[in-house]
Amino acid sequence: MPGPAALTPSASNPATPSGPTVATARLENGLDIVVIPDHRAPVVTHMVWYRNGSADDPIGKTGIAHFLEHLMFKGTSNHPVGEYSELIADLGGQENAFTSNDYTAYFQRVAKEHLKVCMEYEADRMRNLVLTDDVVAPERDVVLEERRMYTDSDPAHLLSEAVQAALFTRHPYGAPVIGWGEDVALLGRTDALAYYERFYTPENAILVVAGDVEPQAVIDLAKSIYGAIPARGEAPKRARPREPDIRGHRLVTLADEKVEQPSFQSLFRVPSYRTAARGEAEALEVLAHYLGGGQASLLFKTLVIDKKIAVSAGAHYIGTALDDTRFYIYAMPAPGVSLEALDAEVEKIIADVARNGIDEADLARAKTRLVADAIYAQDNQSTLAQWYGASLTTGLTLEDIAAWPERIEAVTAADVTKALHFLDRQRSVTGFLLPVEAAA
Amino acid sequence: MPGPAALTPSASNPATPSGPTVATARLENGLDIVVIPDHRAPVVTHMVWYRNGSADDPIGKTGIAHFLEHLMFKGTSNHPVGEYSELIADLGGQENAFTSNDYTAYFQRVAKEHLKVCMEYEADRMRNLVLTDDVVAPERDVVLEERRMYTDSDPAHLLSEAVQAALFTRHPYGAPVIGWGEDVALLGRTDALAYYERFYTPENAILVVAGDVEPQAVIDLAKSIYGAIPARGEAPKRARPREPDIRGHRLVTLADEKVEQPSFQSLFRVPSYRTAARGEAEALEVLAHYLGGGQASLLFKTLVIDKKIAVSAGAHYIGTALDDTRFYIYAMPAPGVSLEALDAEVEKIIADVARNGIDEADLARAKTRLVADAIYAQDNQSTLAQWYGASLTTGLTLEDIAAWPERIEAVTAADVTKALHFLDRQRSVTGFLLPVEAAA
Repeated sequence: MPGPAALTPSASNPATPSGPTVATARLENGLDIVVIPDHRAPVVTHMVWYRNGSADDPIGKTGIAHFLEHLMFKGTSNHPVGEYSELIADLGGQENAFTSNDYTAYFQRVAKEHLKVCMEYEADRMRNLVLTDDVVAPERDVVLEERRMYTDSDPAHLLSEAVQAALFTRHPYGAPVIGWGEDVALLGRTDALAYYERFYTPENAILVVAGDVEPQAVIDLAKSIYGAIPARGEAPKRARPREPDIRGHRLVTLADEKVEQPSFQSLFRVPSYRTAARGEAEALEVLAHYLGGGQASLLFKTLVIDKKIAVSAGAHYIGTALDDTRFYIYAMPAPGVSLEALDAEVEKIIADVARNGIDEADLARAKTRLVADAIYAQDNQSTLAQWYGASLTTGLTLEDIAAWPERIEAVTAADVTKALHFLDRQRSVTGFLLPVEAAA
Repeated sequence: MPGPAALTPSASNPATPSGPTVATARLENGLDIVVIPDHRAPVVTHMVWYRNGSADDPIGKTGIAHFLEHLMFKGTSNHPVGEYSELIADLGGQENAFTSNDYTAYFQRVAKEHLKVCMEYEADRMRNLVLTDDVVAPERDVVLEERRMYTDSDPAHLLSEAVQAALFTRHPYGAPVIGWGEDVALLGRTDALAYYERFYTPENAILVVAGDVEPQAVIDLAKSIYGAIPARGEAPKRARPREPDIRGHRLVTLADEKVEQPSFQSLFRVPSYRTAARGEAEALEVLAHYLGGGQASLLFKTLVIDKKIAVSAGAHYIGTALDDTRFYIYAMPAPGVSLEALDAEVEKIIADVARNGIDEADLARAKTRLVADAIYAQDNQSTLAQWYGASLTTGLTLEDIAAWPERIEAVTAADVTKALHFLDRQRSVTGFLLPVEAAA
């Protein structure tokens, strides 16, 4: 498990060929700071990232990370509910918050002169959140309604939950970020407060500031504002159950009358950037791009363009994760094509790649595109801030971030072929979404 | 969650038409006592049941309940390893221990005059177990080897694990009692000791004595021996994650070259005697017997005798469980019959029962047989003791045990039809075990 120590080795400004020059610091209370200068516009992106996400939800309390994210907007002992959001709106800024498997983050984008007030409000809600039953119970109903509207009434979403739960039978990546309805219905003020006390501490947070700022000035400002929050002790432990190596292919089928377009997905449990041996995650990234990254990819070309048995197809590697993660393949069949036929064709394509390998031209194309995409992403200040935040909260270091382009460039055709062994059908999960007629 | 309080209401000798007259008591340290007089032979069955099983294993420590059961034979500060077992053997007795999802139990059967020495040794290891690294590490290797020999090298066992894990994606019934190898490999002395301290307490134990004894004398003896163990505080909490209501049929397929006989299983998550509404569990019991209890059952008659597409078939309801549990249907295909065909035929049989119901003669036959089996079981003293121990550690009361025959008799044809709604394919898990040729 990566502790906050992950940041410190890079405190000496790891200038990189492709990335910005980043400054880092750690306050005495344990808060980590990352400043990413970006002088193209007089704006600043202010984010606080907490090293806890849905996969850190206590047993039987799935959904609490996401629930607390909602509750963080409910006001503090210094500022009533709504005041912070109104202020950001009045300043012409934007705000957002999101909960993922491995992190929770709060985001504001404002004109650079308003950085200080963002820090003040954000630091305030790191320690002074007020949670009363009057606030907690109605907000829980909001989350339950969100679940009913977007998950329970959407067969594709329900299938996706069942597929994730089959791939991760013990590890909490198998539970949805919003939580299982059965658990969420029982969350209360005491749970929320205990969770807040445990995770919303300076030791567990990373402040990421990107924008038209001078690093030392940001660090000094953070020290005066966030530095006033007392340390609460050690950073919380992230202890998650190990996923056992379960043998057996699992096919999850959901048939529902609301389904109009059938679809196919295949999921494989694979190492993440943090858990992989050196080079493995990068090979999986290249493999996903080669197999299913866009309309020039092998799956799209073969299934959609050449054979015309699918209307879409792709692959994706979720590499930014604290623990072992997912590699997806997905496709939607053309009318009249069965999911079994599509599944068999995908199997055949993978077997062909395993037999014949990837040719050097395709390899070079995939790598060039991946690195180029990463460079283009830096054009967007909040994307850049998110990249750093997500990487650092999933156990990577600033060196890892800086070295990523060269590590992608170093992937060989043999590495890609070797990575194919992770796509082992006997250990994978397949999902079939079907209209009711087809299932009957 | 049932606490030890479950026993107390029945302390006033619930004599029943079909069962023995049972005496109960609770010592001041919280130990519950159940005495079942059985004067047919001058022997006594002495059991200590702990209200913890594999489903209470802490997160990431699967297998520890079972591991501790092994370690309980490793000696105490008063008696070196082996002494207790040798004594029982010298007395011409038998001993055993077992770990289940919901309980762990230690068993001795001896001539009645040796009850006292059993109590002394058993009480001794409830508080004085000695665990050193010298003992713990080699025993862990024994368990790992047990897992390698009986599970990892047996495809049917591996499939069964995968199927259970698919049915219970969050609830610990999805993990094997022996534990996942990945977890067991990391269990150490500290884990074992913490587990022992938490669960091996008088408040968490039930002493069950069956045999040629006088109840008050047993209670007095227990008071003098077990009563000397200090209470450790409250009984441990049994907090287990709720299983979400996952939609989607899950088919788990394992193909292995070691498989010679293909097989089919279908599992449904259903209420247990403890979690069911009144009458539901009994209806499931009758349904399982009607569908698949022996060679006169519907599945056997239809699949094996009439259609000759299977060489075996049956159904089973695991009703004795603290939480929602399993209803199994299983079959082995005749040569040349596919598992898909067998699965479809089982589906059809269930649909027919749902449509036509169960006729009164079949219902009466099933109920008579179930009650008769229970009465015959009382002929065996240790079966009787196990029945009480398993029921009481899974949250039932002595009244529940006593009322079971009349509750089975009360099941109507409509109850059985209603119970069929639990066999919902969209929420079930099917397992296919295949030789490698058939899968290719």
